[in-house]
Amino acid sequence: MPFDFTLEHLDPQTAARAGRLRCAHGEALTPAFMPVGTAGSVKTLTPDELRAAGADILLANTYHLSLRPGEHTVRALGGLHRFMGWSGPILTDSGGFQVMSLSTLNRVTDNGVEFRSHLDGAKRMLTPEDAVRIQDDLGTDIAMSLDELVEWPAEPEIVRRSVDRTLLWARRGLEERDRLRQQGRGAMALFGINQGSVVADERRRCFETLGAMPFDGFALGGLWVGEERSLGLDRVEEDCAMFPSDRPRYLMGVGHPVDLVEAIGRGVDLFDCVLPTRNARRGTVFISSGRLVVKNAAYARDTRPLDPECDCYTCQKFTRAYLRHLFAAGELLAMRLTSIHAVHHMVQVVRRAREAVLAGRYAAFRAAFVERFASGEALAPSPA
Amino acid sequence: MPFDFTLEHLDPQTAARAGRLRCAHGEALTPAFMPVGTAGSVKTLTPDELRAAGADILLANTYHLSLRPGEHTVRALGGLHRFMGWSGPILTDSGGFQVMSLSTLNRVTDNGVEFRSHLDGAKRMLTPEDAVRIQDDLGTDIAMSLDELVEWPAEPEIVRRSVDRTLLWARRGLEERDRLRQQGRGAMALFGINQGSVVADERRRCFETLGAMPFDGFALGGLWVGEERSLGLDRVEEDCAMFPSDRPRYLMGVGHPVDLVEAIGRGVDLFDCVLPTRNARRGTVFISSGRLVVKNAAYARDTRPLDPECDCYTCQKFTRAYLRHLFAAGELLAMRLTSIHAVHHMVQVVRRAREAVLAGRYAAFRAAFVERFASGEALAPSPA
Repeated sequence: MPFDFTLEHLDPQTAARAGRLRCAHGEALTPAFMPVGTAGSVKTLTPDELRAAGADILLANTYHLSLRPGEHTVRALGGLHRFMGWSGPILTDSGGFQVMSLSTLNRVTDNGVEFRSHLDGAKRMLTPEDAVRIQDDLGTDIAMSLDELVEWPAEPEIVRRSVDRTLLWARRGLEERDRLRQQGRGAMALFGINQGSVVADERRRCFETLGAMPFDGFALGGLWVGEERSLGLDRVEEDCAMFPSDRPRYLMGVGHPVDLVEAIGRGVDLFDCVLPTRNARRGTVFISSGRLVVKNAAYARDTRPLDPECDCYTCQKFTRAYLRHLFAAGELLAMRLTSIHAVHHMVQVVRRAREAVLAGRYAAFRAAFVERFASGEALAPSPA
Repeated sequence: MPFDFTLEHLDPQTAARAGRLRCAHGEALTPAFMPVGTAGSVKTLTPDELRAAGADILLANTYHLSLRPGEHTVRALGGLHRFMGWSGPILTDSGGFQVMSLSTLNRVTDNGVEFRSHLDGAKRMLTPEDAVRIQDDLGTDIAMSLDELVEWPAEPEIVRRSVDRTLLWARRGLEERDRLRQQGRGAMALFGINQGSVVADERRRCFETLGAMPFDGFALGGLWVGEERSLGLDRVEEDCAMFPSDRPRYLMGVGHPVDLVEAIGRGVDLFDCVLPTRNARRGTVFISSGRLVVKNAAYARDTRPLDPECDCYTCQKFTRAYLRHLFAAGELLAMRLTSIHAVHHMVQVVRRAREAVLAGRYAAFRAAFVERFASGEALAPSPA
């Protein structure tokens, strides 16, 4: 099997872990932040820039790629890695989240999700078997099982039904991978997703069954959907306590630096989120001391880099004044330069977290990180 | 004086020249193609990418930069080179072309051009003295004198009046630079612009006076505005025959590869144009064998690079199929990757032209280049 996860160190005071994923396309250190390459491109950036920013594993969206250019085209062109020029590990989602959020007229049954493409309105179906087959066609390193998402808040019976369906689909996804493997395909890892919304009992009930299935890793689904941060973090702590320690844990869609640091302290290994890069393209970036809205006129003559403590390409080469000008002028270079910082910053957060785990001082790291982020230092524009 | 032009070689059979510009910010080999950094950014690209694509001199637009962020801001931030992170030579235009084409309600008198900003409608004035002062504030290496443009075709008396006004403004621009130099500023080179539309007699009359003024170089204005190519090239040939051989010659706004090669053969040293990069952002690129519309669906499974003969970053790393996908998906990376190719390709055209001059075989180079460009080879999509 080309997939392997090694746990290298456990922090003595928290649940934080340092590990290493080995995939067919190379290694990724954990905790890891995966930049999101929705349609086979992390928006505005080249694979070389992602690598230079420190990223060693990406996420790509199955829904987008299966609609355009289509998984058969990607497969014919040698798979997603070759298609987009990224040689490192790739994790793909199941397509379920976008099917339910982007497409119109979707209808969920035990068989799968019927939906209309948001591109051309064509009627389509996504079953748990499809999700696994499409991800195999894309040539992913880590595939996700199809799960059913529920809105938040949801009625108890809705949550219960979604757990049952998620478990049914999880089993069918694993069976589909077995069939693929009998055909000499399906070498990818497959992760199961724990569901149950923010309801502790339902999440526990879900994992009693899910945890007994031969998944290569487990994801925490149905969180960060609008609930209180502390509530979400409680569910993270409980899920991680149930999850087997020898397999990676992935908190889907979480991307605020403070949330990452808190979730790592509760035992999470993998993260992805469009938030840092989407904000960046709109002129706002996270820096070590807070959230900087660089497109504001107040920075028009500020000659400091975005983050005086950052050593990314953008912070080494360009001033806030220049970036602010590029945003004001509608120049695309603005989005690129802030995106480079955004990816680099998130990767630095998880790298420093990892070093803290290895040094056995995660609790102190977390406290200092949260305090520094709240400080707002260096956010005020410099006197012109 | 920090500006110097050395003529290194003359082709024995054509009027093609190889030279070297030395500016306060370094050297540029001629013939040269200057990518256009309209608002302090060659759209989508970093200075490092421009350098990697072979560019050694850029053009920036005085009109855009003086409106936003304003020449005083650029000056306060250390000048345009530092502001945008480009350490090589920069040539700025006078602002006249954009004042007359982009702004509304412009009114030209002997004093200068009254106009309203296309950004906020504010009433402004651009005199020949302003044009020189603004370019000095930007910290340019080579400034252009303000000239009066006329529509094409134009009545003889309109052409005559524009020549007279251009000469008046040329003198006033030089006087303004003298005043700046008395204040320890104005170190930049200043080029005069020959006018007279496509009327040979008027261009000759213009240059009789302009050529006697102490400009550091001369530009060919009023051409490539809709007239026949052969007519434009005839005027280029005549202008270059009048221009002093020891000063650089700049054909403004010309960017089709074949036009460059033809104009170099008639004695031109410098070019700029937004065409190659603008087309690139819209999914069309020049390659050695013609014009490739890579966004077309026909390339969806074409695994060749844009130009099989090109060694730019994009052609080394990405397929037409991927680029086509990025355009179809509206990904900004598409524009970047085609822009890199576009700049690299134009720089390669002038570099090869230079080598041909140095080898004394420009006529053969030109014939082969034009034939190859017309061949259309490698444009047909590959069989999937």
